[in-house]
Amino acid sequence: MKNEIIIYSISDSLGETSQKLLTAVSAQYPDLNFNKSYRFPLVNREEELLGILQDALKDKAIVVSTLVNHRLAETARNFSQQTGLMYLDLMHPFFEMIQARTGSSPIEEPGTVHKLDTEYFNRIAAIEFAVKYDDGKNPQGFIDSDLVLLGVSRTSKTPLSMYLANKGYKVSNLPLIPEVPLPQILEDVDPHKLVGLVCHPDNLSRIRSNRLDSLGLNHSTSYTDLEKIYNELDYSQQVFKRFGIFTIDVTDKSIEETAYVIEEHFKEME
Amino acid sequence: MKNEIIIYSISDSLGETSQKLLTAVSAQYPDLNFNKSYRFPLVNREEELLGILQDALKDKAIVVSTLVNHRLAETARNFSQQTGLMYLDLMHPFFEMIQARTGSSPIEEPGTVHKLDTEYFNRIAAIEFAVKYDDGKNPQGFIDSDLVLLGVSRTSKTPLSMYLANKGYKVSNLPLIPEVPLPQILEDVDPHKLVGLVCHPDNLSRIRSNRLDSLGLNHSTSYTDLEKIYNELDYSQQVFKRFGIFTIDVTDKSIEETAYVIEEHFKEME
Repeated sequence: MKNEIIIYSISDSLGETSQKLLTAVSAQYPDLNFNKSYRFPLVNREEELLGILQDALKDKAIVVSTLVNHRLAETARNFSQQTGLMYLDLMHPFFEMIQARTGSSPIEEPGTVHKLDTEYFNRIAAIEFAVKYDDGKNPQGFIDSDLVLLGVSRTSKTPLSMYLANKGYKVSNLPLIPEVPLPQILEDVDPHKLVGLVCHPDNLSRIRSNRLDSLGLNHSTSYTDLEKIYNELDYSQQVFKRFGIFTIDVTDKSIEETAYVIEEHFKEME
Repeated sequence: MKNEIIIYSISDSLGETSQKLLTAVSAQYPDLNFNKSYRFPLVNREEELLGILQDALKDKAIVVSTLVNHRLAETARNFSQQTGLMYLDLMHPFFEMIQARTGSSPIEEPGTVHKLDTEYFNRIAAIEFAVKYDDGKNPQGFIDSDLVLLGVSRTSKTPLSMYLANKGYKVSNLPLIPEVPLPQILEDVDPHKLVGLVCHPDNLSRIRSNRLDSLGLNHSTSYTDLEKIYNELDYSQQVFKRFGIFTIDVTDKSIEETAYVIEEHFKEME
């Protein structure tokens, strides 16, 4: 049985930062069980906080805090000093450095990250844009896109589009199929906005097989056929060459990693 | 002019955790300019790290590190102690607490978060599912969904579906339009999987007006008409009542906040 560790995350907002840190930390301990960890969002009263800290002490939990309110953070710090509770404050050490450097104080308003401002609405609009112009559904959208992803089936175009959209980019994508002519409008798109995705044929065949399994389809189709895949990839390389498109090999890359390569590429071009 | 502060984020992976923390911290300083901050991902050599730290010192930057490698983290810690560089290590204080509690050590493998494991592929499949079954395009998908979102136009169904999909939920959604009959299949869906979205009529009218502006359309349409909106919302409430659907008022809520309410609701039902 796996050894167990309990983490309590406390926040006066939703606690997404601690969750992100916890994901990164737990990935470093494949043999530890973090499943009994708890998340306490929207904590804003002292009694509530003290109750949680008492429970954490009983559970021998490690407490991670992103409380922005300095009074609450101080309560937690004092409590942990007196009781020996393991307590990690992610915000206030950072706040203190900023204070030392600039003299500025935080506004201490919880949930400011979720402000419904212009940036937020642009991000929402970008997500809707990406859904609307997914899978070459409406090539007209290529013109207004910040980015157009091109690649054969199963080169992660859709999830990559959604991930980049969530960062505010207006993304569309086009599946490349040798038998289907390219939409005419592609000629009018700034080639710098185009990104080509390639993948190793063996991986592509495996991913497509899994895809058919998950759809409950049998494999008698040419979809997973290696020769067919070679042809498709050849064709996609011809397209990339013809338009002079920046290409990325997505083999064994996560969406996050591919998105990072794309963002860096576009930064360099600016 | 805004006061300026420079943050350097250093990671041996992509540095997403520091970016998340930086977003949360900078939201607390609306009057400070964080735009000159730098992100240094994939740092894995000591000379490279020392070069970055030297630059940080010159820039009077605050350095945030999510380096998992203990040798690199130690180098950075020693450097900052000797030079007075402001340095914040997000990982190792956490690692030390886990060590104290369980005796376990981190594997120190950068990028383990992006492992292409079953969970990763489930998440990707969920994103593709949500795109495929967005906007009531194929009501057949309701049956296989973990969650079906229902609401009138502009109640954030699409972005909410994508956000929840990114967390691994298979989500579909259906726009409620009084003139369009409900798909028959809705009768066969477990009503516990249905979530109704409502919004204050004034907000809905404003959001729809902005939507028309962004599409370059004029407002002579009944789409933004308050009476029409009242009727639509009435109708949606009738549907929610008929199926006994859990509903959420999304007025002034961000996607993240609404998603949180949904997740908590489903946790309680388990």
